[in-house]
Amino acid sequence: MTRTIVASATREIIIGFDQPFCVIGERINPTGRKKLAAEMIVGNFDTVIKDALEQVAAGATMLDINAGVTSVNPNETEPGLLVQTLEIVQGLVDIPLAIDSSVTAAIEAGLKVAKGRPLVNSVTGEEEKLEAILPLVKKYDVPVVAISNDETGISMDPDVRFAVAKKIVERAMDHGIKPHDIVVDPLVMPIGALGDAGRQVFQLLYRLRNELKVNTTCGLSNISFGLPHRHGINAGFIPMVIGAGMTSAIMNPCRPQEMEAVRAANVLNGTDANCSNWIMTYRDHKPAEGGAVAAASASPAAGGRRGGRAARAGAGAARE
Amino acid sequence: MTRTIVASATREIIIGFDQPFCVIGERINPTGRKKLAAEMIVGNFDTVIKDALEQVAAGATMLDINAGVTSVNPNETEPGLLVQTLEIVQGLVDIPLAIDSSVTAAIEAGLKVAKGRPLVNSVTGEEEKLEAILPLVKKYDVPVVAISNDETGISMDPDVRFAVAKKIVERAMDHGIKPHDIVVDPLVMPIGALGDAGRQVFQLLYRLRNELKVNTTCGLSNISFGLPHRHGINAGFIPMVIGAGMTSAIMNPCRPQEMEAVRAANVLNGTDANCSNWIMTYRDHKPAEGGAVAAASASPAAGGRRGGRAARAGAGAARE
Repeated sequence: MTRTIVASATREIIIGFDQPFCVIGERINPTGRKKLAAEMIVGNFDTVIKDALEQVAAGATMLDINAGVTSVNPNETEPGLLVQTLEIVQGLVDIPLAIDSSVTAAIEAGLKVAKGRPLVNSVTGEEEKLEAILPLVKKYDVPVVAISNDETGISMDPDVRFAVAKKIVERAMDHGIKPHDIVVDPLVMPIGALGDAGRQVFQLLYRLRNELKVNTTCGLSNISFGLPHRHGINAGFIPMVIGAGMTSAIMNPCRPQEMEAVRAANVLNGTDANCSNWIMTYRDHKPAEGGAVAAASASPAAGGRRGGRAARAGAGAARE
Repeated sequence: MTRTIVASATREIIIGFDQPFCVIGERINPTGRKKLAAEMIVGNFDTVIKDALEQVAAGATMLDINAGVTSVNPNETEPGLLVQTLEIVQGLVDIPLAIDSSVTAAIEAGLKVAKGRPLVNSVTGEEEKLEAILPLVKKYDVPVVAISNDETGISMDPDVRFAVAKKIVERAMDHGIKPHDIVVDPLVMPIGALGDAGRQVFQLLYRLRNELKVNTTCGLSNISFGLPHRHGINAGFIPMVIGAGMTSAIMNPCRPQEMEAVRAANVLNGTDANCSNWIMTYRDHKPAEGGAVAAASASPAAGGRRGGRAARAGAGAARE
């Protein structure tokens, strides 16, 4: 059984097929968040602190930490800022972190200060990336996210994306890194632009799980880009990828609809033992939705219609 | 490609792997609905009419029609009442119907009056049932739901349930009925009582789709029996069974959360061309959920964080 171990100073988490889905909180990332970038540049970490606490409270399993505040001289600014951000967050919350940067020097600087066993985010199939990141992954004995694109970009052919993932796993093994420390990102495309985006990912996940036997992750909300009511698409996508074998995602844990989908899928996937987490979270849940014909409590249960039919059938069609 | 054709007087619907999920409205069923049973016994069809219209308005693909008002002398009361109910509903709405009864005489009476090509609900693997129902299915050239239990009850072993389904398909073929006219119900157990209930169904669906190549259905809400916030579990289960290959379900279309999950899964499964149905349904959607950190429109899109990283990677890690 594939087990990717990540850890904070005192807490170890396992990413695996038999584990609850690993929710990697995406909020601490200034890319595309101008206000956050402006704050971090001037050394204001108020939003970082708020986002860290809120994501943990919302149920994040890990937190992704990115300090890419600028595209100008990131090699100079990013290592120091990433270290500062990591230290603030790990001083505040005790869950494992992902060190997220496209700047190799920033990743190494982060690895030097991160407590426990962080996840490196990320390496790709590009030669330059492989040679820069894999030695660090080996040196610090940490797991790494492997994004399935290479110098030629992101292939629209899932077989090519699978081949790139396989190449990264093999190259990692050459460096002495075990496949269970590679978390493959099969790359999720917007379904509004590419109608096949969902099935591509499900097919890739099946092969990644059964052939490469690796854990997987994705940038979840990409799937719904450009569509109305994105949370509804995200919330439908989560159970589907979990059913297809995905074991983690980089997502926003502060969205109740998405987190409800994660919790339900854990129940249905058999990774919420005795439904304990579900029951604890929703035992006092009051239905808020409108337009329903009857209240939940009025619905027939397993002893009712369909269950009743099944029960009758099981009892030898007693009604006939 | 497996295609089960059902029809009303003028509308034909295909159930199939490449089709939108077929939602069979479950409401018109007095089993477990004492008030409805009492009304139907005295010839009051107000609730039947209301339920028919509401389910169609909510997006049902088909309607299940059951008239099992009593366990006393159903052979006498049910045929006439089922015929009456079917005639009222098909006079009111023009979508295909499922004739749902455990009384063979009622099914035959229903088949005589139903317009188009109704679905018979159901046959089991019990000898007596097979011999009673399959000749009717052949005679009237209609599809039938096959429930995977037999005289020994419902097996907890998915392999046995698969074997029962296979037996029904083979027996149907002996009667000249094609496998594409068998819609197998793998039987969904409550996950609160049986932690493996989800994975059992996913595994069965995989085999039913790939080995028997049949369409499938289930009594969907059984999965959440006994748990708090059942709609959340149901809404998580729908994308998972659709991803695993289920092509229809008997469910309550008047529940917005469940129907949203169906629509999202259709988008993600590639059966909502150009996301047209999703966009039409949710284009004016206003987020109603509380507790979120940021509004939907403030979320980074594919051009943002993760997509941004992917885009960077695709462009040769331009930031480095």
